Amino acid sequence: MDAGQLAHPGVEELEVGPILLALADENRRRVVAELAARPDDERLCASFDLPLSKSSRTRHWRVLREAGLVYQRSAGNGLYMRLRKEDLDARFPGLIQAVVAAD
Amino acid sequence: MDAGQLAHPGVEELEVGPILLALADENRRRVVAELAARPDDERLCASFDLPLSKSSRTRHWRVLREAGLVYQRSAGNGLYMRLRKEDLDARFPGLIQAVVAAD
Repeated sequence: MDAGQLAHPGVEELEVGPILLALADENRRRVVAELAARPDDERLCASFDLPLSKSSRTRHWRVLREAGLVYQRSAGNGLYMRLRKEDLDARFPGLIQAVVAAD
Repeated sequence: MDAGQLAHPGVEELEVGPILLALADENRRRVVAELAARPDDERLCASFDLPLSKSSRTRHWRVLREAGLVYQRSAGNGLYMRLRKEDLDARFPGLIQAVVAAD
């Protein structure tokens, strides 16, 4: 697989169970909240200030991506992430806002 | 402990992490959805039609109770449960509605 083309579930494949499981973790929830604050922006994964090892961070990015919460893209100088806000709002209206507001 | 007095977290102790973890399971989510459809009603736990063993059901009731999603009360003829709708709506506005609507 091309490093720039990570696998992502389609919008019709999104399921609320994996989404909630992904959001149950406070570090992942924090990442989603920061992305939701600027939903049009893509962000360098390395720019998130999390108290975690590199392998833990990598695992969290994968959980977020496989649940369908974020799009990830590998570019020359790193891995970028953005919230799948349109897809999430279409499939689960109000959910991301409610979760982000809950903390 | 009196069997009629199970321990429940106070409204100020509710945390979104355990709430989301509890709701990530489809059987627990189904129970919450059924309770949310009639939020003023207390319901006999045995009345939920779940494809689970008695011990699994008991574990799910405990997860729901400890997360603060439901009040449980043991009466002479069984265990009763109702959604903590007011507490949840106060602490996490829109969350339960969004989760219930997502399935």
